[in-house]
Amino acid sequence: MIITHDIRLSRIIKGTWKNTIFVAVTCSMAYFFYWYFIQYHFEMPSIIPTILGTALAFFIGFNNNQSYDRWWEARKIWGALVNSSRTWARHILHFPTANARIKGQHLELLKEYAIKRHIAFLYALKEKLRGTDDSEYKKYLIQSDIDIIENESNKHNAILSLQTMELKTWRKEQLIDGFEFLELNREITRFCDEMGKAERIKNTVFPTSYNYYTKAFIWLFNIAFTLAVAPTVGWRAILFGTIIGYVFHTIHFIGQAILNPFEPIPTGIPLDQITRSIEINLLEMIHEEHIPDPVSPINDEYVM
Amino acid sequence: MIITHDIRLSRIIKGTWKNTIFVAVTCSMAYFFYWYFIQYHFEMPSIIPTILGTALAFFIGFNNNQSYDRWWEARKIWGALVNSSRTWARHILHFPTANARIKGQHLELLKEYAIKRHIAFLYALKEKLRGTDDSEYKKYLIQSDIDIIENESNKHNAILSLQTMELKTWRKEQLIDGFEFLELNREITRFCDEMGKAERIKNTVFPTSYNYYTKAFIWLFNIAFTLAVAPTVGWRAILFGTIIGYVFHTIHFIGQAILNPFEPIPTGIPLDQITRSIEINLLEMIHEEHIPDPVSPINDEYVM
Amino acid sequence: MIITHDIRLSRIIKGTWKNTIFVAVTCSMAYFFYWYFIQYHFEMPSIIPTILGTALAFFIGFNNNQSYDRWWEARKIWGALVNSSRTWARHILHFPTANARIKGQHLELLKEYAIKRHIAFLYALKEKLRGTDDSEYKKYLIQSDIDIIENESNKHNAILSLQTMELKTWRKEQLIDGFEFLELNREITRFCDEMGKAERIKNTVFPTSYNYYTKAFIWLFNIAFTLAVAPTVGWRAILFGTIIGYVFHTIHFIGQAILNPFEPIPTGIPLDQITRSIEINLLEMIHEEHIPDPVSPINDEYVM
Amino acid sequence: MIITHDIRLSRIIKGTWKNTIFVAVTCSMAYFFYWYFIQYHFEMPSIIPTILGTALAFFIGFNNNQSYDRWWEARKIWGALVNSSRTWARHILHFPTANARIKGQHLELLKEYAIKRHIAFLYALKEKLRGTDDSEYKKYLIQSDIDIIENESNKHNAILSLQTMELKTWRKEQLIDGFEFLELNREITRFCDEMGKAERIKNTVFPTSYNYYTKAFIWLFNIAFTLAVAPTVGWRAILFGTIIGYVFHTIHFIGQAILNPFEPIPTGIPLDQITRSIEINLLEMIHEEHIPDPVSPINDEYVM
Amino acid sequence: MIITHDIRLSRIIKGTWKNTIFVAVTCSMAYFFYWYFIQYHFEMPSIIPTILGTALAFFIGFNNNQSYDRWWEARKIWGALVNSSRTWARHILHFPTANARIKGQHLELLKEYAIKRHIAFLYALKEKLRGTDDSEYKKYLIQSDIDIIENESNKHNAILSLQTMELKTWRKEQLIDGFEFLELNREITRFCDEMGKAERIKNTVFPTSYNYYTKAFIWLFNIAFTLAVAPTVGWRAILFGTIIGYVFHTIHFIGQAILNPFEPIPTGIPLDQITRSIEINLLEMIHEEHIPDPVSPINDEYVM
Repeated sequence: MIITHDIRLSRIIKGTWKNTIFVAVTCSMAYFFYWYFIQYHFEMPSIIPTILGTALAFFIGFNNNQSYDRWWEARKIWGALVNSSRTWARHILHFPTANARIKGQHLELLKEYAIKRHIAFLYALKEKLRGTDDSEYKKYLIQSDIDIIENESNKHNAILSLQTMELKTWRKEQLIDGFEFLELNREITRFCDEMGKAERIKNTVFPTSYNYYTKAFIWLFNIAFTLAVAPTVGWRAILFGTIIGYVFHTIHFIGQAILNPFEPIPTGIPLDQITRSIEINLLEMIHEEHIPDPVSPINDEYVM
Repeated sequence: MIITHDIRLSRIIKGTWKNTIFVAVTCSMAYFFYWYFIQYHFEMPSIIPTILGTALAFFIGFNNNQSYDRWWEARKIWGALVNSSRTWARHILHFPTANARIKGQHLELLKEYAIKRHIAFLYALKEKLRGTDDSEYKKYLIQSDIDIIENESNKHNAILSLQTMELKTWRKEQLIDGFEFLELNREITRFCDEMGKAERIKNTVFPTSYNYYTKAFIWLFNIAFTLAVAPTVGWRAILFGTIIGYVFHTIHFIGQAILNPFEPIPTGIPLDQITRSIEINLLEMIHEEHIPDPVSPINDEYVM
Repeated sequence: MIITHDIRLSRIIKGTWKNTIFVAVTCSMAYFFYWYFIQYHFEMPSIIPTILGTALAFFIGFNNNQSYDRWWEARKIWGALVNSSRTWARHILHFPTANARIKGQHLELLKEYAIKRHIAFLYALKEKLRGTDDSEYKKYLIQSDIDIIENESNKHNAILSLQTMELKTWRKEQLIDGFEFLELNREITRFCDEMGKAERIKNTVFPTSYNYYTKAFIWLFNIAFTLAVAPTVGWRAILFGTIIGYVFHTIHFIGQAILNPFEPIPTGIPLDQITRSIEINLLEMIHEEHIPDPVSPINDEYVM
Repeated sequence: MIITHDIRLSRIIKGTWKNTIFVAVTCSMAYFFYWYFIQYHFEMPSIIPTILGTALAFFIGFNNNQSYDRWWEARKIWGALVNSSRTWARHILHFPTANARIKGQHLELLKEYAIKRHIAFLYALKEKLRGTDDSEYKKYLIQSDIDIIENESNKHNAILSLQTMELKTWRKEQLIDGFEFLELNREITRFCDEMGKAERIKNTVFPTSYNYYTKAFIWLFNIAFTLAVAPTVGWRAILFGTIIGYVFHTIHFIGQAILNPFEPIPTGIPLDQITRSIEINLLEMIHEEHIPDPVSPINDEYVM
Repeated sequence: MIITHDIRLSRIIKGTWKNTIFVAVTCSMAYFFYWYFIQYHFEMPSIIPTILGTALAFFIGFNNNQSYDRWWEARKIWGALVNSSRTWARHILHFPTANARIKGQHLELLKEYAIKRHIAFLYALKEKLRGTDDSEYKKYLIQSDIDIIENESNKHNAILSLQTMELKTWRKEQLIDGFEFLELNREITRFCDEMGKAERIKNTVFPTSYNYYTKAFIWLFNIAFTLAVAPTVGWRAILFGTIIGYVFHTIHFIGQAILNPFEPIPTGIPLDQITRSIEINLLEMIHEEHIPDPVSPINDEYVM
């Protein structure tokens, strides 16, 4: 998530220089084509770039709207994970009632671990979505759980399975009653749902045609535009064509930059920051001593 | 689901050559009509293609938005089926408590089959949506269940009915308590809802008029455009008309390609891949030995 | 619901000939007004039809979007009724546990009738939405129920009340436990909600002004357009004006055709088909002998 | 809610004459300004009204979309109140089980009053939303309840509190069991939610700037338009400017007319009709003798 | 929330004078550039500002739609908090049943404090969202609770934890049964969800690029516009450019003003007013003597 209000020139140039050069070359070639083959034969009617501009406006607008919806849905999913994580911790802390067999320190340890295992779930999910392989999640698991999970292809799902098993044990041991079991189980179901929604966004390729044809039509539009203004402004058609092409490419590019919100890129959802922030919250709730620092922005420019 | 970033030229040509030829013929005929009947009599004012272009922009935009919504809703439905399937398996594995009559190996078999029968449900649903008739779902059913289902017109629904019956038996046998019964039953209800939503999308024809008139108006627009630019650019009007017509047809075509997301086409929802992926997940959870491979992309171009 | 891909010319002409004649007359009158009063005095600037076209594009687009939303919401409501009906039947079949007083054949009859009464509910709702009065729903009710309902103004609601009463009896008789009561009762509540949503769409007139002014502004636009192109194209202004007017009227007309989705019209939601399809499903589930045929399309063109 | 399909001329004139005169005066002044100060000096380029028209199209479109959303959300809220009211009555009628202390006539009276108190809730809510003070709701309350409510600032909320109290008493008296208590209580919670949503729409002023600047920009656009067409059409610029201005003002006005859907205006949600219709439904369900007539339309034109 | 219908000139000037001066300077510089470098060499084709205008229309429209959605979602969140707060108070007042140990005055005090602690939660949440540090929330907490919360970084979450703890105690003490526990606990979960949603909106920076490039493209558009009209209208190009630029900047500015709805600005959501209004409602419900006054508008212009 970008946090500065003014975008750095370096970022702009880094993100667009390839397209800009490509646009400039296209416009130059269109101009020389005009110079040698068209100028004494006919004039390009301006209705052509105008109509292509309309078609492009729809295409780019459509792309941007859908990109933003994916990005915002992704943000909502992790927002829901934040909320449910807090609710999970709150319930785990207060629902279980000590009984003759499980009480005092023993019960406290069970509760603490149910919360820590949830932090492990969040880290495992984050690593899957980001495609990294830090195995940071192991930090919060005991060895026997690590052994069980090791061979599973879907580690975050396996952790949820462990949580359900734990819950069932608590119920059998009378630590929680039926209503409390219902509430805690629903939270796990909700984690599973949000996890699946995040995976859906990550695994579903946005229909390729929209991106591909947008680029093709910008290219076509650029040529038509350059040819259409050349008779009036001469060689400056290259300059104006490049500016207009740059504007259209940039608008398209902004949308593309948020299309895959879970990628580890500056414009993505700050999963590191959100996960750490839940981690701190939950560790505070169990009065853990060593609490990690919040994630700090990179270059004062963005957080991951 | 198309997974390459650059669309193959062969696919483009395959998808659009008919329309392109149709457009080229239309433009040519419009030009000859212009040559013999119009050129010395009057000039087509460019306001006509401009205004028709606006009307088309709305029409095509509307079609694309609704197509994408259907496609994305279809994807969400199968996403929800993924999530609920995992929750179903998690609950089936951990909820039942052994009792004097049903325990050990016996209970394990009951649990395994409740999960396998769910895989059968997914295959039956997929086959119905895809309109294929592989009866792959039978692989996961015991003969007595196959006999019951055989004569039903709606096989996936019949499997859900079997699951409910099973659940009731478990409840009667005290394998699960009221709260667990509630949670498991809600999952079946959710399967039934998502199944119905998928059928709704499959069975509801998108209002035919939108597609029909879009084509008719592109045709009208193409003629008006060719006539309007002919006086300025001469025979090149055919070329420009074909390009512009191609652009409009292509934008329309992209939307049409995702309008029926459950069809077995490269641009549809990858039901094979999603079903297989749940299958693998669920079989892993019951430690099945022989686990099928994930579905691989066809031509490195798309997954079904 | 229209099921052919190509719309019949007869339907097009039937649906639009009045408007087309009206448009042609308007354009002719505008042309003669131009001929006698305008041509030697001033020229209509083309900015006027262009700007009016923009205003119209918004209006018609807005109408179409809202019409489609009403139509799709209506379809979703009946989709939800399909899903809940299956869930209702599944629960009715498997939830009740025989006891000393009610068992065997007696219990089967109770279950069958709870499902048949639900089919009666669907027919009663359909008849209300369609504004027909076939009383087909009576076929599935016993006489004592018919007597109770006869005097109610809202028959479908009265049937839901009977279902709730039945449920309470089952609960008192210990046929179902509290959790099962909860699930069955929630289904009735859901029927009531979907029923109310359908009535909301039927009873809420879409703000009249949008339709009225759209027509008025198309008329105004048509005149301005004809006057603006007349100096360039002469008497052909009538022809072009009629074509453009036809296009705008048609786009508007397509939206209007799906604005009231429960009307018994070819473009409406196929309530007959959906109701029959649930009926067949439910009768199959109780192994009824005489099962009606599915609704067949009319003229291979549409289903009601 | 307006129910005629053709809008009366009187209503149109009543709603727009002020704006029309204002537009005509603006255009006249612009024309005279053109005549004395501009005509021999320079020509207004038509790009200016064109670009302003685009800006306006967005603004007015945005206003209309948001207005319609508020209006439709308001309609949905009252639709949900209709559905929940029927469910409330259905549950109240069939859930309570007579016991030794409360039975027969006594129980019937309790049930009837729980339903009548709900009608009182609807009237109280309606009066608050409409800003009227008829205290019609008192008709359905017993004196002791009226005394309790009298001093509350939020009467509809106070009635819900009474209902909850009643429910708790029923539970304590064993008239209803835990599951029935849950269902009935959820209905009250739903009434509270829908009530709050209606208040949110009523109390939230739509951002003033949109309305204010729309008017300002229409005014600016009108002047630019008149100046731009004056050189071509002379004094007729006043006429054309007024027509175009009228069209834009009208589109804006239609949206404004449904922006505050709970106001007692013909274009608002027909709260009188909906409330009365629930009232009739509920009184029929308890076999009340004197049932009021449905609300009739005013002038055959609209219902309140 | 701005409550006047006419916006004060002072507010307009205050909000836009910087941009207006910046636009005027840009247009002047563009004009002088035209005068010295362009006028005898070539003419700027008007297609350039027209096409840039289209791109801008999309950009600004997109910004405004997303801003409004954030603003309206923020309003809905606090509307849901209002509804749930009333439901919380209603349940707290009527659910608990006195028993041998806890009854009469003692029980009343417990109930009152559970409601007051909820008011504290709302104040703590409001202060966090507004970024103020009045600690007004302490007014409604007893010292022992203040001590617990003092060291927590997330005070509103800590208060919810206290509420859950209280609830568990009530359950253990048999003041409430399982069903009542379920309902009350769900309200706390809902508070946690709405709180998290509000934090999500506050903490998520709207993608910076949209705002940044909108400004850049308005600047580019302004220059192109001035250059394009200069040949026709001479020095008046500065005037017209400034007006058009002002219009575009204003439309953009209106959207920006509601982008961060929880900021303590006149166009934000009136958190002070809503919180106070819930406070009054809840205090009335427990018959508190000293009830604070509603928040009054500032300058009759807006409420905070």
